[in-house]
Amino acid sequence: MEPRITFVTLGVADIKRSVQFYRDGLGLPTDYEKGDHAVFSLSSAKMALYPRHLLASDATVSPEGGGFSGITIAHNTRSPEEVNAILTQVQQAGAKIVKEGQEADWGGYSGYFSDPDGHLWEIAHNPFLELKVDGS
Amino acid sequence: MEPRITFVTLGVADIKRSVQFYRDGLGLPTDYEKGDHAVFSLSSAKMALYPRHLLASDATVSPEGGGFSGITIAHNTRSPEEVNAILTQVQQAGAKIVKEGQEADWGGYSGYFSDPDGHLWEIAHNPFLELKVDGS
Repeated sequence: MEPRITFVTLGVADIKRSVQFYRDGLGLPTDYEKGDHAVFSLSSAKMALYPRHLLASDATVSPEGGGFSGITIAHNTRSPEEVNAILTQVQQAGAKIVKEGQEADWGGYSGYFSDPDGHLWEIAHNPFLELKVDGS
Repeated sequence: MEPRITFVTLGVADIKRSVQFYRDGLGLPTDYEKGDHAVFSLSSAKMALYPRHLLASDATVSPEGGGFSGITIAHNTRSPEEVNAILTQVQQAGAKIVKEGQEADWGGYSGYFSDPDGHLWEIAHNPFLELKVDGS
């Protein structure tokens, strides 16, 4: 698995309100916006791990919470076979396969796993979105 | 606000278990690992918005859930003043200020807001982590 987060996807209740917030309010540049889906191009991200209760405490919110977090992390691959290979790898590493790799109605191939804390990762091959050589 | 996610931080219950999962199991390269904190360098991320119930449905999980999601998104700035300016900007755009900008015990300056769906963003200046000219 190459070190790559392709998308941080926020689940939102009202796509119009959220596009207004991020595009017009915060001024973030959309690179795709259609129907119920919007994508913003952002510069490189790091992933950090931190104790859940301390993270909540730093944000001054209660650590209570459960169920669907409303956030998924996507890792795009170079082929459908790579999706399956990664799902096998993560399962061996202790992840739970939430959705086996399968053809998606948008024309790609994807599956989901959850990490030891239930964080959801989509592993996806999108034939319409070529990865650059450096993986970005 | 420049288009940048600096960190996707996963709140975890057992840092040792999670580092093993991501570093050893998945092979992601750590660039910082100390005590209760680990950071992985990943290539560039996009942020997407998608209806919450369809996102849950795509992952084949129940959309039920609430409280602390266990995930924050961090946007690092070039100065403490920029933290305050962004918090003012997002408030005007309809965000809720969860934590006013303030000096942090790790030597930086940070605050938190939540977006219209409650997704938590940290806006932070870290004097020990210079941003490159391109913001990455």
